[in-house]
Amino acid sequence: MDANRLKALLEQVRSGGVTPDAALEQIKTLPFEDLGFAKVDHHRAVRAGAPEVIFGPGKQPEHFAGIFSRLAARGNNVLATRVNMEQIAATRALFPDVEHNSLARTLVLRQQTEKLGKGTIGIISAGTSDIPVAEEAAVTAEVMGNDITRLFDVGVAGLHRLLSHSDELRAARVLVVCAGMEGALPSVVGGLVAVPVIAVPTSVGYGAAFGGIAALLGMINSCASNVSVVNIDNGFGAAYVASLINRL
Amino acid sequence: MDANRLKALLEQVRSGGVTPDAALEQIKTLPFEDLGFAKVDHHRAVRAGAPEVIFGPGKQPEHFAGIFSRLAARGNNVLATRVNMEQIAATRALFPDVEHNSLARTLVLRQQTEKLGKGTIGIISAGTSDIPVAEEAAVTAEVMGNDITRLFDVGVAGLHRLLSHSDELRAARVLVVCAGMEGALPSVVGGLVAVPVIAVPTSVGYGAAFGGIAALLGMINSCASNVSVVNIDNGFGAAYVASLINRL
Amino acid sequence: MDANRLKALLEQVRSGGVTPDAALEQIKTLPFEDLGFAKVDHHRAVRAGAPEVIFGPGKQPEHFAGIFSRLAARGNNVLATRVNMEQIAATRALFPDVEHNSLARTLVLRQQTEKLGKGTIGIISAGTSDIPVAEEAAVTAEVMGNDITRLFDVGVAGLHRLLSHSDELRAARVLVVCAGMEGALPSVVGGLVAVPVIAVPTSVGYGAAFGGIAALLGMINSCASNVSVVNIDNGFGAAYVASLINRL
Amino acid sequence: MDANRLKALLEQVRSGGVTPDAALEQIKTLPFEDLGFAKVDHHRAVRAGAPEVIFGPGKQPEHFAGIFSRLAARGNNVLATRVNMEQIAATRALFPDVEHNSLARTLVLRQQTEKLGKGTIGIISAGTSDIPVAEEAAVTAEVMGNDITRLFDVGVAGLHRLLSHSDELRAARVLVVCAGMEGALPSVVGGLVAVPVIAVPTSVGYGAAFGGIAALLGMINSCASNVSVVNIDNGFGAAYVASLINRL
Amino acid sequence: MDANRLKALLEQVRSGGVTPDAALEQIKTLPFEDLGFAKVDHHRAVRAGAPEVIFGPGKQPEHFAGIFSRLAARGNNVLATRVNMEQIAATRALFPDVEHNSLARTLVLRQQTEKLGKGTIGIISAGTSDIPVAEEAAVTAEVMGNDITRLFDVGVAGLHRLLSHSDELRAARVLVVCAGMEGALPSVVGGLVAVPVIAVPTSVGYGAAFGGIAALLGMINSCASNVSVVNIDNGFGAAYVASLINRL
Amino acid sequence: MDANRLKALLEQVRSGGVTPDAALEQIKTLPFEDLGFAKVDHHRAVRAGAPEVIFGPGKQPEHFAGIFSRLAARGNNVLATRVNMEQIAATRALFPDVEHNSLARTLVLRQQTEKLGKGTIGIISAGTSDIPVAEEAAVTAEVMGNDITRLFDVGVAGLHRLLSHSDELRAARVLVVCAGMEGALPSVVGGLVAVPVIAVPTSVGYGAAFGGIAALLGMINSCASNVSVVNIDNGFGAAYVASLINRL
Amino acid sequence: MDANRLKALLEQVRSGGVTPDAALEQIKTLPFEDLGFAKVDHHRAVRAGAPEVIFGPGKQPEHFAGIFSRLAARGNNVLATRVNMEQIAATRALFPDVEHNSLARTLVLRQQTEKLGKGTIGIISAGTSDIPVAEEAAVTAEVMGNDITRLFDVGVAGLHRLLSHSDELRAARVLVVCAGMEGALPSVVGGLVAVPVIAVPTSVGYGAAFGGIAALLGMINSCASNVSVVNIDNGFGAAYVASLINRL
Amino acid sequence: MDANRLKALLEQVRSGGVTPDAALEQIKTLPFEDLGFAKVDHHRAVRAGAPEVIFGPGKQPEHFAGIFSRLAARGNNVLATRVNMEQIAATRALFPDVEHNSLARTLVLRQQTEKLGKGTIGIISAGTSDIPVAEEAAVTAEVMGNDITRLFDVGVAGLHRLLSHSDELRAARVLVVCAGMEGALPSVVGGLVAVPVIAVPTSVGYGAAFGGIAALLGMINSCASNVSVVNIDNGFGAAYVASLINRL
Repeated sequence: MDANRLKALLEQVRSGGVTPDAALEQIKTLPFEDLGFAKVDHHRAVRAGAPEVIFGPGKQPEHFAGIFSRLAARGNNVLATRVNMEQIAATRALFPDVEHNSLARTLVLRQQTEKLGKGTIGIISAGTSDIPVAEEAAVTAEVMGNDITRLFDVGVAGLHRLLSHSDELRAARVLVVCAGMEGALPSVVGGLVAVPVIAVPTSVGYGAAFGGIAALLGMINSCASNVSVVNIDNGFGAAYVASLINRL
Repeated sequence: MDANRLKALLEQVRSGGVTPDAALEQIKTLPFEDLGFAKVDHHRAVRAGAPEVIFGPGKQPEHFAGIFSRLAARGNNVLATRVNMEQIAATRALFPDVEHNSLARTLVLRQQTEKLGKGTIGIISAGTSDIPVAEEAAVTAEVMGNDITRLFDVGVAGLHRLLSHSDELRAARVLVVCAGMEGALPSVVGGLVAVPVIAVPTSVGYGAAFGGIAALLGMINSCASNVSVVNIDNGFGAAYVASLINRL
Repeated sequence: MDANRLKALLEQVRSGGVTPDAALEQIKTLPFEDLGFAKVDHHRAVRAGAPEVIFGPGKQPEHFAGIFSRLAARGNNVLATRVNMEQIAATRALFPDVEHNSLARTLVLRQQTEKLGKGTIGIISAGTSDIPVAEEAAVTAEVMGNDITRLFDVGVAGLHRLLSHSDELRAARVLVVCAGMEGALPSVVGGLVAVPVIAVPTSVGYGAAFGGIAALLGMINSCASNVSVVNIDNGFGAAYVASLINRL
Repeated sequence: MDANRLKALLEQVRSGGVTPDAALEQIKTLPFEDLGFAKVDHHRAVRAGAPEVIFGPGKQPEHFAGIFSRLAARGNNVLATRVNMEQIAATRALFPDVEHNSLARTLVLRQQTEKLGKGTIGIISAGTSDIPVAEEAAVTAEVMGNDITRLFDVGVAGLHRLLSHSDELRAARVLVVCAGMEGALPSVVGGLVAVPVIAVPTSVGYGAAFGGIAALLGMINSCASNVSVVNIDNGFGAAYVASLINRL
Repeated sequence: MDANRLKALLEQVRSGGVTPDAALEQIKTLPFEDLGFAKVDHHRAVRAGAPEVIFGPGKQPEHFAGIFSRLAARGNNVLATRVNMEQIAATRALFPDVEHNSLARTLVLRQQTEKLGKGTIGIISAGTSDIPVAEEAAVTAEVMGNDITRLFDVGVAGLHRLLSHSDELRAARVLVVCAGMEGALPSVVGGLVAVPVIAVPTSVGYGAAFGGIAALLGMINSCASNVSVVNIDNGFGAAYVASLINRL
Repeated sequence: MDANRLKALLEQVRSGGVTPDAALEQIKTLPFEDLGFAKVDHHRAVRAGAPEVIFGPGKQPEHFAGIFSRLAARGNNVLATRVNMEQIAATRALFPDVEHNSLARTLVLRQQTEKLGKGTIGIISAGTSDIPVAEEAAVTAEVMGNDITRLFDVGVAGLHRLLSHSDELRAARVLVVCAGMEGALPSVVGGLVAVPVIAVPTSVGYGAAFGGIAALLGMINSCASNVSVVNIDNGFGAAYVASLINRL
Repeated sequence: MDANRLKALLEQVRSGGVTPDAALEQIKTLPFEDLGFAKVDHHRAVRAGAPEVIFGPGKQPEHFAGIFSRLAARGNNVLATRVNMEQIAATRALFPDVEHNSLARTLVLRQQTEKLGKGTIGIISAGTSDIPVAEEAAVTAEVMGNDITRLFDVGVAGLHRLLSHSDELRAARVLVVCAGMEGALPSVVGGLVAVPVIAVPTSVGYGAAFGGIAALLGMINSCASNVSVVNIDNGFGAAYVASLINRL
Repeated sequence: MDANRLKALLEQVRSGGVTPDAALEQIKTLPFEDLGFAKVDHHRAVRAGAPEVIFGPGKQPEHFAGIFSRLAARGNNVLATRVNMEQIAATRALFPDVEHNSLARTLVLRQQTEKLGKGTIGIISAGTSDIPVAEEAAVTAEVMGNDITRLFDVGVAGLHRLLSHSDELRAARVLVVCAGMEGALPSVVGGLVAVPVIAVPTSVGYGAAFGGIAALLGMINSCASNVSVVNIDNGFGAAYVASLINRL
């Protein structure tokens, strides 16, 4: 459409309705998003099918709801993460159908339901305390148009639980693995499958877990070659990467 | 083929050529890889198309060449990383056709040339000092059956160089981005494309670069949502993940 | 038995009752839990005599009490650590006989009282502020069927207090030593006894104590060869290890 | 004026109104600021045009307002940073015209409006969460007599936004760049301009952002040679340095 | 000129010499370097008066000399830092007049001698061991066209030495202060002057100096508001920033 | 006296009043406190003149007051640090004359007023925010029988204030220097005096001050040879060491 | 025997062969090991069955051989760890039968072969690079009188290898598990057995492995309750602890 | 004398020999060294009895010997620390009587032998590997005019060795305690004596000892109140502080 707009302008130049100088001036003063778009901002195209995203913490309820409305107006799905009760209430007043996942601490407004992922994304958590992060990943993957499988509470100290789900593991096209404490699960899972594993260290643990640093270090040093890592507790980011992979 | 082997044995049981007891004994004494394979070791299948890999550091030349020979006998491509001159000489005596990439510090024996990747993997480095890591990634991606594009020395302090290659960036199906010092390049690249970016912090830098920690932290905290990270200087691992993605 | 089952199948192949293909399929599709389970999950047997354990923090009172009930139904002792007042009240409503140790911040339901440990476990704390961790260890050791001796407030800056208890130290079969600040006590105790010492760094201290890191580092670097270490404030884990040792 | 005071004393010595001994005694007992000033305390002269500054945190409202009054009496501008509501109320009771900037969390009393800076200081923030720090820098620069330009929310993952403001970037005589997370923005900005860039890491981010450490490390390791760095969240300090530069 | 080029194209559209569609295509396919260049790469202009710079470590002598030659051909001053004896010999064979400063570990080829700085840059070092870093700063500042003053070995534990040079301190337009160990000197100097202080932590020290981290932390936390900081041992970077300031 | 007791026993053996076996048994079973005590516990004698000390944090008011009473009964001075309002109230109910220093957050019961220090202890703070730590040191030094001089708010960025007090600095027999942020003051003070300087890093500062770590590192790396360091915010400990020195 | 010696002396006192005064003097001048032994030094008894140990690094060959000789004279086994070629040659000249294990880098002189351990100690390594540490543990356990089983190269990314050895794992009375990189193996092993697991982080790995810190953190945070940890690369210490446990 | 000089000037003003303006100018232009010297540089007086000190590392032999000569000419004792063989040879050529202590790695030229310390300084080391640091302390203390007692190899894991020297411990007026690994010895010693303890962490240890950081943290967090700490391996600094104390 930017091309269309530019072409219309050029037509006007051709027809004499606009002088070259005036056209030049218009081109110069077009908002960058329009003119420069072709060269620099592939961002929007890139994000086709990506949800509009709001990070909840620190935002006043009305301010939060206002941003939510503005983003919703673009017609994409809207995903808000780490929301609190006040933010939910303020948003629900405007969008009664917004979906709140209390485990994931997310709000979702579905406006597009196209299936964009080609296969299934497996979402795995080591312990029950890692579930909020894993659920954030699950909600993100779903809102980005993927089928998902959840395997929760399959940590390495009880290996039989994990192994009894080998079929689900192998059926996934890409895996998101959330673990705190020593963060060993992605290495073990990585050794069992032949697909990319996105590891999410969680801040679960105490003492020398250092809020997720131990798990982060463990995952970065994974002896399994198919593991890459995102930030501590970043379930959203892991699912975002997995969704891009699943569209390929 | 394991299935084939097992099936052949069962045929022999059927035909009476092998007693059930003898078959049982054979099944029991099959190397674990064979018997347990169906349930636990999906590893080999998983690694179809993966090279046999040797990590060079600390291995005596003859020992190194011996491992190389043994792995080569399996018929896959063989990739050795971080090799030194003595290891190269000892291996070349056995495999005159082995390819040495001096920038990447790799040795490669190509025994399979099937194209396994569906698109192109972009290999990007911020500075010239990051090239050894980027080349290790490039060699790995090639040996795993991918087409690659190299974009080297396109760091963030000279943005025009990076931007002048927007087309190549956008043409890639997945990107490996290597950077040391502040490790900012993956964030910038991540904002320009809509595909997964595998970030590799390098140990390039001095002072407070801390051998790659600054770059690692920068990449883990990337504000671009399509970035995941591997270990410092782990060009091999990044290309391994990218190759798995490129096969999807 | 798996062998038996497999042999029976092979016999059927022999007799023609099952085709090789069908047999192959059966072998492939046997649920892991059945075939592999015996090999992998020794977990349950392993934990004979271990309490059912609940980690209190972050659990809603009713949810906590629900888990407590479910675990209690298995007939083992139940141990909840780091409980709060609401969790205690909710649990006591269901189990009036549950024992609350306010120092240790534990809830215990005794359903088995068999003495499983062969000797005495010494539980030692450096300062009075380390007592909550030491008490958690004490309660854990007791609920796992051990006799214990407590030696509290015997830190290294007042050596005579520790030395005056040499007999108790030497009478123990294994020792749990809790200390914060510089974490020197396990080294001193380790030099006085010939049995294993399990060191527990505590988060006691301020300034450069870094929430137990200084103590953890001190203990990991202990010059006494009979010392091994668990996580900061992990009184439960130390007593768990000590209990396993005391059963040998 | 100190010179004047000293000269007056010397005149009195000359005229006989003061004996040399008495003069010596007076000189000795003059407050250090007067006597030693010529040699040691260039501080006051140095700070000509600098605001009187109060750091709000930890100060009781009345105590805060008292300090504010005392400093205001010197006739300079007064700048209070990180103020809270109680401090504002107590101060406004005394100085009805005091200006409160709620984004910057500052209170300002303008008593001097001389333009001391020769050009414009650009104040840039990567994300919306970095704005409080950037606003603190903006208020500081203004109160120190500078023209400023604000470019907010121009982070590296959306490069087109930053690039569309190239003209403003290039028009600045010195730049203050505030960024959290990976802290990459100063490197990118540094590559686009030929003037000094003062980088301010912010504590924005989560997980491995470590309260601004990741951003600080990124900035200290910047590959752009025109970048120097101040403390985490230190918008005041960055603007102070930028103001000194802008007076040259 | 881009505007001119674009205007010429628009004129052709007006005159009918180019159809709107063809014009649109041309605009789309203009290489970014041409169209976007004016917007993005201010880099070259920006670096007017900056030396061409080579970082010596890790470069083979002939490779080093080759780069040196190529850069020299541009007609600017060439500055190589952290050079070794072999690099010097190889370069001197090509450029007999190249200047080697053995303290600074630099090679300089002067091809431009224009005085670009308006005042004097003071280069200060705390101890004699900090001199290599300070000299690197001095050489850099000189090659960038500045007058400099050196004040070496004026550390804070012998305050009278520093204070006896107050006049030189105050005469400088901007200061570079190099210190290792506790890195206290920039704070003290910052309190004595009213101009920007660029602090360079050095790796001088032992034990808990951690290769310059202690000094870096000290400087980042400076209580003097006119201090900003560059990387450990980065004398070049500090002088680069100071030179930009001195041109204002 | 132990020797006497042992000799008496040996005499009885000689005289036949005690058999060797019985004597052996007695020697073995003598309580350690009696036999070994003289060798080991010099602690009490050592602490002659030291106050009884209570660390307030975490103690319930009545529990706190109870400990206070018990310690007071020994007749020594009692010093409680980091006390809160409830603890003060509970203690004052029992000891109306107890002295509360609100800056230092201490409670003191003076029962001995002997002057034990031979000279003056100088207590110095860099900023006003360091005063609570410095006051804790001052109160401790006083309660341990020393004359003290306070020099507060004499940080290194305003050197003239410190230098104007050179006489007081030189008059002290030992100095306690409290500083946060970069912790540079002990180095500067150490260079001005010829007596021991006890440095106390404080948790004052923000950002990369890391709760006192920057100051701690600065002080440990001090270039002044007469500086030794205690824990972050440990005003009590610094004054304790200084008091021992002042008694020599 | 000390008791015997003391009793003999007492008998002499009884018989008049030694006066009480002379006895007292003898008791006083007995080496501390003899007199104080009953109370303080249980060290020797404690260490019954422990080898005499020499840590090789930094010791001159002749000095090393001299210590070796002196320790050998006590009649116990002698174990030297981390020996180099020169130390081996110098020692072999004196003790031709000394055993050198080149993998473990140990020298052993067997003078006692009593079997002191009651069961088998399992020594497990994750990768081939961890073998030197694991072998050091193996040699230590053997020289302390234990039967051992080695399971090497059974890391978590190839789970089937580990699981195929379940029987050996379960047969051990205590396990030593050595792993570098992410250090996940002890958690997995801990979940498979019901006995104590002594975890040894190794310095194997690169990049963010930080010389074993990542593995150490992983192990300290293990989600398996039967794991305790020793220092990085401390194979000796782990086997020492395991040996004490195996004697119980 | 400054006062005298100033008074003379004032007399001249009185007498009319100097005008007030000229006097003002003179006062302003008096060199700081003259006027301010008395106020600022107490350094020299302060260091009466201190040796001239050279830190060896990094200095060329002739350069080293040159500095040594220059310092020796002042007539004080000269102490060089961490010297190497070449430095020793070059110095001995000039000063045949210079004393080399190979354990301490020091060179000493005694030119003054006055006894300046009032009592004995105890120098204690935990292990044999800590002896170089302890010897550096011993040599420093001696050259500064103190009597010393050495207690080496009395680490906390063999407490009886330390306790058997209680008398020597108690006889010292101040103690220097050197320890690596967990650094626990100063706490234990601190509890046994009533005098100041200067703790020196050493870089002895491996793995998580981190080159002395573990010991440094342990000592800074000591539970004994009479302990203060110097830098890692800083035997010189500890003895310097102890010597100042011993002169009081």
